[in-house]
Amino acid sequence: MEAMLQQSRAMCPFLKRTAPTTLRTLSTATRPSTGGGTMSNLQVLARRCPVMSKALAVQSARMSGTKRFTSSAAGIPAMKPMRAPTAGKRALHTTGGHPASLAPGTYEKTEQVHPNIANTIRSTPATEAAVRGPRPAAPITSRFDYDAFYNGELEKKHKDKSYRYFNNINRLAKEFPRAHTASAEERVTVWCSNDYLGMGRNPQVLESMHRTLDTYGAGAGGTRNISGHNKHAVALEDTLAKLHGKEAALVFSSCFVANDATLATLGSKMPDCVILSDSLNHASMIQGIRHSGAKKMVFKHNDLQDLEAKLASLPLNVPKIIAFESVYSMCGSIAPIEAICDLAEKYGAITFLDEVHAVGMYGPHGAGVAEHLDYDVYASQDTTNPKSTKGTVMDRIDIITGTLGKAYGCVGGYIAASANLVDTVRSLAPGFIFTTSLPPATMAGADTAIQYQAQQPRDRVLQQLHTRAVKSALKELDIPVIPNPSHIVPLLVGDAELAKRASDKLLEEHGIYVQAINYPTVPRGEERLRITPTPGHVKPLRDHLVQAVQAVWNDLGIKRASDWQSIGGFVGVGVEGAEDANQPIWENSQLGVDASEPLESSITRELSAEAAEKAAFPAMKTATPLGSNVHSAIASTPVGVAA
Amino acid sequence: MEAMLQQSRAMCPFLKRTAPTTLRTLSTATRPSTGGGTMSNLQVLARRCPVMSKALAVQSARMSGTKRFTSSAAGIPAMKPMRAPTAGKRALHTTGGHPASLAPGTYEKTEQVHPNIANTIRSTPATEAAVRGPRPAAPITSRFDYDAFYNGELEKKHKDKSYRYFNNINRLAKEFPRAHTASAEERVTVWCSNDYLGMGRNPQVLESMHRTLDTYGAGAGGTRNISGHNKHAVALEDTLAKLHGKEAALVFSSCFVANDATLATLGSKMPDCVILSDSLNHASMIQGIRHSGAKKMVFKHNDLQDLEAKLASLPLNVPKIIAFESVYSMCGSIAPIEAICDLAEKYGAITFLDEVHAVGMYGPHGAGVAEHLDYDVYASQDTTNPKSTKGTVMDRIDIITGTLGKAYGCVGGYIAASANLVDTVRSLAPGFIFTTSLPPATMAGADTAIQYQAQQPRDRVLQQLHTRAVKSALKELDIPVIPNPSHIVPLLVGDAELAKRASDKLLEEHGIYVQAINYPTVPRGEERLRITPTPGHVKPLRDHLVQAVQAVWNDLGIKRASDWQSIGGFVGVGVEGAEDANQPIWENSQLGVDASEPLESSITRELSAEAAEKAAFPAMKTATPLGSNVHSAIASTPVGVAA
Repeated sequence: MEAMLQQSRAMCPFLKRTAPTTLRTLSTATRPSTGGGTMSNLQVLARRCPVMSKALAVQSARMSGTKRFTSSAAGIPAMKPMRAPTAGKRALHTTGGHPASLAPGTYEKTEQVHPNIANTIRSTPATEAAVRGPRPAAPITSRFDYDAFYNGELEKKHKDKSYRYFNNINRLAKEFPRAHTASAEERVTVWCSNDYLGMGRNPQVLESMHRTLDTYGAGAGGTRNISGHNKHAVALEDTLAKLHGKEAALVFSSCFVANDATLATLGSKMPDCVILSDSLNHASMIQGIRHSGAKKMVFKHNDLQDLEAKLASLPLNVPKIIAFESVYSMCGSIAPIEAICDLAEKYGAITFLDEVHAVGMYGPHGAGVAEHLDYDVYASQDTTNPKSTKGTVMDRIDIITGTLGKAYGCVGGYIAASANLVDTVRSLAPGFIFTTSLPPATMAGADTAIQYQAQQPRDRVLQQLHTRAVKSALKELDIPVIPNPSHIVPLLVGDAELAKRASDKLLEEHGIYVQAINYPTVPRGEERLRITPTPGHVKPLRDHLVQAVQAVWNDLGIKRASDWQSIGGFVGVGVEGAEDANQPIWENSQLGVDASEPLESSITRELSAEAAEKAAFPAMKTATPLGSNVHSAIASTPVGVAA
Repeated sequence: MEAMLQQSRAMCPFLKRTAPTTLRTLSTATRPSTGGGTMSNLQVLARRCPVMSKALAVQSARMSGTKRFTSSAAGIPAMKPMRAPTAGKRALHTTGGHPASLAPGTYEKTEQVHPNIANTIRSTPATEAAVRGPRPAAPITSRFDYDAFYNGELEKKHKDKSYRYFNNINRLAKEFPRAHTASAEERVTVWCSNDYLGMGRNPQVLESMHRTLDTYGAGAGGTRNISGHNKHAVALEDTLAKLHGKEAALVFSSCFVANDATLATLGSKMPDCVILSDSLNHASMIQGIRHSGAKKMVFKHNDLQDLEAKLASLPLNVPKIIAFESVYSMCGSIAPIEAICDLAEKYGAITFLDEVHAVGMYGPHGAGVAEHLDYDVYASQDTTNPKSTKGTVMDRIDIITGTLGKAYGCVGGYIAASANLVDTVRSLAPGFIFTTSLPPATMAGADTAIQYQAQQPRDRVLQQLHTRAVKSALKELDIPVIPNPSHIVPLLVGDAELAKRASDKLLEEHGIYVQAINYPTVPRGEERLRITPTPGHVKPLRDHLVQAVQAVWNDLGIKRASDWQSIGGFVGVGVEGAEDANQPIWENSQLGVDASEPLESSITRELSAEAAEKAAFPAMKTATPLGSNVHSAIASTPVGVAA
């Protein structure tokens, strides 16, 4: 598609000089057409084009008299060549006798450049059927119009501005956090990746993957049950169990699948199960709950009173799962995990905690927010003098789910829990049983990443320091940062089209990639830009970001924090007390921050320490396995099941 | 777990001399216990062990007086240390004052070796709650007993012999198709991998992955919408669309997710949609259909009459999806694809064809069975003289799904279809939208694998020749090969425990790994061994397999083909005419087989040609991109959407 686009650009003077944003705007803005439906402004332009107009005319003539199928396609009827009659097998292998009089190559290339036009000029089974051979007596014109259905669904997305255009971003391992676009020469700075710590380019992770690729090949070659179980799966699940202080862990294709499969399995198998779900829960949990068929009760986001009221309304003997997240990725809020554990115990529920945006990022070993809440207990663990971790917040959580694809830089997801629970999911969940295992190299790389982060917190400390610096600089400029205690920097825009334009402007005019977050990822009206600093976002990059955001906010006249305040505040922006209620969960002492000096001094100190360490140990070290030092003390319960 | 097991083996004389199979048998066979429930024979032995008996006695004493929670756990009460009272946060960080008098290390190691004992000696929230601090007035003893639930589910699996023990198999890229077990020194031959063509160790695939890893890092770093879209996704989807002659393709985490997400999305969004599903469809399709909430009609496996009757019973204007597979993986049967297309057209349905076990394996370019059915049309394509492929079977299929994790040796799944359909799924399916993209190196490796297989059919030809040789040799020995026209060699056993024992014997006594396939992967009573030859299974390996299967069939007295015949036949084995009806879909002429000479001569010729080619081109070549030669002619429709 990219290559085609470039070819077409070379041929077509219109495409050559028109920016992608303009093309998008043209293709989504619609006007009434002569046929009584609507057509996009791009379609209007297409009718003026000598190439496209001919194509459209040929098709109009061919189709005249056949039924028009949707209002969205009105004026631009189907263009696909007719199919040959289905008299016999051989006949099918020849083209039908209705070639367009237009050179097909010319048309095809043009068609591919205008996705929105392409969407409306395909034929449908209905129109095809109308010109085909003998058929049974049934009224063939009443067949379901599949293409009209697809067009209708896409039209809806275009109309409400939720249609998504993917940005071609190629993150460069050796220039982190920079990337090239569709052009290999064009550089942009990525400010919205979930590779929060840059582990995707960590030399130890890459070395581990290269080595495993060479020895064990590209893919696992089977499901876990049929030839896809291996020492990499055993080791990774062992590491994950130890990381979270649980008896066992289970790896899935992704945490979407882990959440979906685990909730669907438990919710459907436990008799009369009720799942209590935070209102901001991720789509994977919502899907798992729906698929479970269990009764679902949604409690207000992070609202303990509402949760308790709902728990109290249920009989004590009914099985209940409280499903929630530690860090909510789109607003950066953090759940009151310990208080939720208290409620779970009080009302006989189990807890299901999604730490997807927290693993690698919080806690002395990167085990997540649950570990972070008992920072000192976990930080002081050592093999010679192990402390008990019974009763810590992490210990009290029944099921922790996490990802290997964000802070750990790879791909895949997992659950960690008691051996019996994990074995039950392992034995019953189709999404685990019937799917190819992750590749050995992926599992080895993820294992290395976890071990690496368990041994040194520098990456996450630097990430937090950069986050503080960005938040603070933006707030000083009255940019509406949604207050939160985590590493996410969400900027409220409040309008889908405006958010998209701001994102496009940052990319095209400033070389900064921050994706606009629109519905369905956030509710309508809460559209935002979501910035995620990494350890690689040093001061010059941060300064550039802040200046660019300021410029875009000015250019587009996007609401400032004070504007939101003047209308009473919204999603925490301009709300009195919201800042105080959202102090960073990483405390000054944990970050080595001296409140009496400028933040940049702490950052410089941390970066110097990192540089000094690199100078002292220039060679690549292999990480000591998790458990061989700190974590063998933590994991007091046995690990792994059916390994 | 593996390491623990080895440690424990070194310590415990019982474990040292007892085979894993025996341990499994001991742990699954149960007898009535003194407590009124049941206990396994392993538990009985544990009571005689000086270490385990002490542990059990300590726990019995501690738990006496507390409620026993399940019959399955009777006699062996909970062993987990008590939790401290939840008086306050700090109190949680200390261990409760009930240490076991047994050295914890000893106990833990033993516990991990006996998964089944471990399953029954964990405490439950109910028993914990009973000994904890002050509680509200609610009747705490009536809480749902989660651990009893997990135990019960696992117990069911043990009882019906469907509990799964994973074999630790590490496939060695440089010794394909050999692998090492949990011990790095022990070699076995893998005869059941779905890396059908050995592409997981293909030098071009590995080179492509190494290069991409170095340049673009380990993970994609985001969803497709948020920083996870890149040139590798664009290129791979472009290649896939061209491979199947469709307008567009979309890549998912796995084909499980692709099937689930696509059927769930289309089925739920199209008003009053009915999905007609082959009775042997894969779990991923069954799950997608269930999740769609659409009406489901199951038609008898490959039964056109039944399908037509069901189609005819529905109003013509109702949207219908016929969901089926090309190669059914567990029996090797192949669908009447063309006739199903005819029915779909007649009754206004669309076709959803899962080619998961066929892509890479059939057709002149490896596009699957649909391509294979028009072998000559596709084989003769070239850029200078492109033939139309309109009306071919592959062209007529509306949605093709496939995997990158079997014949292509990597991981991931996809759909290929019209641009509008793909764009609709892309825009609406949560399982696509809300998940991290596949890693760049995975996508690059898969792309290389597809291009490689599109350019030379040697691997799949050799695979077919080896399949023919294995089937023929086994049939000569009266081994019950389930007749089928594909590359799968299923051996009917008909009993879950017997299938497992046969698999264990092959592994332990003959160094051959063939997984037993039991419920839920196949229906109860149809348990089998499923053999999948590859191009690497040369004559000495095949001879060894045949001799080993013969020995195991003798040792265990497993039914022969003639035994099945004498009771009227079963799933095609011993059924008159079944062989004739299942002639290989790869014809002699396509394989270069001369029917007048022994099969081994054809194999030798093919292997010699391969060796000669390797000698002539020893250096690694980069595959020419799909489309730059043959396939640009095939893909007459535009490719890709929103790239």
